Amino acid sequence: MYSFEQLQEKLDNFVEKMDFLHQPLNLYEPVQYAMHQGGKRVRPLMVLIAADMFSNDIEQAQYPAQAIELLHNFTLIHDDIMDAAPLRRGKPTLYQKYGTNTAILSADVTCALAYEKLNYCDKEKIPALIKTLTSIFVKVCEGQALDMDFEKRTDVTAKEYITMISLKTGFLIAGALKLGAIVGNASAQNINTLAEIGLYMGIAFQLQDDVLDVWSDLKDFGKVAGTDIADNKKTMLYINTLENANEQDKQRLLNLYNTTSSNIGEKIKEVKTLFEKYDTKTKVETMANDYIQKALNCLNDMQIDADRKDNLHTLINQLLKRNK
Amino acid sequence: MYSFEQLQEKLDNFVEKMDFLHQPLNLYEPVQYAMHQGGKRVRPLMVLIAADMFSNDIEQAQYPAQAIELLHNFTLIHDDIMDAAPLRRGKPTLYQKYGTNTAILSADVTCALAYEKLNYCDKEKIPALIKTLTSIFVKVCEGQALDMDFEKRTDVTAKEYITMISLKTGFLIAGALKLGAIVGNASAQNINTLAEIGLYMGIAFQLQDDVLDVWSDLKDFGKVAGTDIADNKKTMLYINTLENANEQDKQRLLNLYNTTSSNIGEKIKEVKTLFEKYDTKTKVETMANDYIQKALNCLNDMQIDADRKDNLHTLINQLLKRNK
Repeated sequence: MYSFEQLQEKLDNFVEKMDFLHQPLNLYEPVQYAMHQGGKRVRPLMVLIAADMFSNDIEQAQYPAQAIELLHNFTLIHDDIMDAAPLRRGKPTLYQKYGTNTAILSADVTCALAYEKLNYCDKEKIPALIKTLTSIFVKVCEGQALDMDFEKRTDVTAKEYITMISLKTGFLIAGALKLGAIVGNASAQNINTLAEIGLYMGIAFQLQDDVLDVWSDLKDFGKVAGTDIADNKKTMLYINTLENANEQDKQRLLNLYNTTSSNIGEKIKEVKTLFEKYDTKTKVETMANDYIQKALNCLNDMQIDADRKDNLHTLINQLLKRNK
Repeated sequence: MYSFEQLQEKLDNFVEKMDFLHQPLNLYEPVQYAMHQGGKRVRPLMVLIAADMFSNDIEQAQYPAQAIELLHNFTLIHDDIMDAAPLRRGKPTLYQKYGTNTAILSADVTCALAYEKLNYCDKEKIPALIKTLTSIFVKVCEGQALDMDFEKRTDVTAKEYITMISLKTGFLIAGALKLGAIVGNASAQNINTLAEIGLYMGIAFQLQDDVLDVWSDLKDFGKVAGTDIADNKKTMLYINTLENANEQDKQRLLNLYNTTSSNIGEKIKEVKTLFEKYDTKTKVETMANDYIQKALNCLNDMQIDADRKDNLHTLINQLLKRNK
């Protein structure tokens, strides 16, 4: 069993040292760029944490850890094209730096490399690992499609929104824990409980992201503040404010999200004021914390030695204090 | 053992009847569009043919057959974006019909579905099948990257070109035979020989494609004639003509490929005339036929019952007569 710090060290070995600089360089140099932008590496860390909950040997977990980070970056690169996002982790997005065609293709091979990593796992584990990775892959695409669809709609409900972020973010986090649990030889029941915990964590994470997108500094968050508002993203902030606003504010918010404003800065400011008027920031933070509490409850109920739960406890508690 | 016609019937059942019309429709309707554009279905047919060479039960082969067709269409959708291709199989390309963002994402899920199909195979076969599919996936990306790189270069050699089309086209065809052979329980040696045959077939297929792109009718070929010339693609026609042309014609051809012509029609016509002057069409057709002969030689040398080879013989002979 490893300490949280030891697992983070292992993560450095497993993920940070991945090298992609082979031929053809016009394909792989952008992969290197995307994979070495820093980032929090939460997902591969979760693979290691989950494996370590059930097994004393976590060497095998390096491959799904790498796979999940690769798959995650693949989806980010394509999402950034679709969202026309200028920055990711404080640096130009891949399509901005290398052009859209290269970004499409380099992301594709990043996805292929995710699957390639799983080839190195024990043969009898591969079917379950592939099934899990593929299920994440399908769901992330479905989530992104719903997200794009929501941009055109004005009647998105809170429930629909939770479904969308579950698909787009939740199942990837859930899948990270699941992949780790599979290589760690966890029971089917424990694998399912971990997936449930991951789903709650993912939903909380995305709700926090919605808040951070509006109220965080570029320095901390690595993205341009207010991007979601500029893109008319129907986040929980928007949905919740609409539900609570008086008729006049509701119409104003609908109008703001229904037009392509020539002055984006003004639009962001006005929307932010409306969000603040209805205390939506606190409400969405509370929702996020409720999901974190659900995750903690599931973890507490798990039938494994208490000290085996420590690292995941630590990670969930870090989520509670997240500000970037 | 099945006849060629019986395998084609099975193919109809396995591939034509695939239905993708589920939620969210903005994601899956384009998949349905891409997967039901007709096309020759050569790759999934090859999976069935290969499986049938070694096994009397080819039900299991339906999943890799579907997987290879899905993976192939995924790559086509992204390639068409990168190449700004207006038509595919005589109809608007997916990004033209649904927009680039949707095309990126719907292709992604098509790729995910390819992997999903392999989940249905016998567990002990899955690692080898996944490894093969992933190896194809990586190589297709590398081939497309080289292809994009070649557009910017003027010194591409015939050898480099064969490497590029091997990666982009050859290994996918090779992989189709390999996937079929794996589910058919072929020996390692036979799997390797089939992969070699597929590689030769793929190279021949692409060389034919280069010729058809210039001299075929839209009606037959489903693409706009001369697209490769318009896009400055360094095909074997171009490379071979450059090698054989006198200094004046060589400079003219280099110039034509070095400028963005305002009159594409004129450019195509002039390049075509240069190709014809040096009899390049016949030369490239001969190269293609040489690869087909290599494939036939490998097949003849295979140590299996002669009648088991009939269907692949038929398919290779069809390649010889290909005009669309």
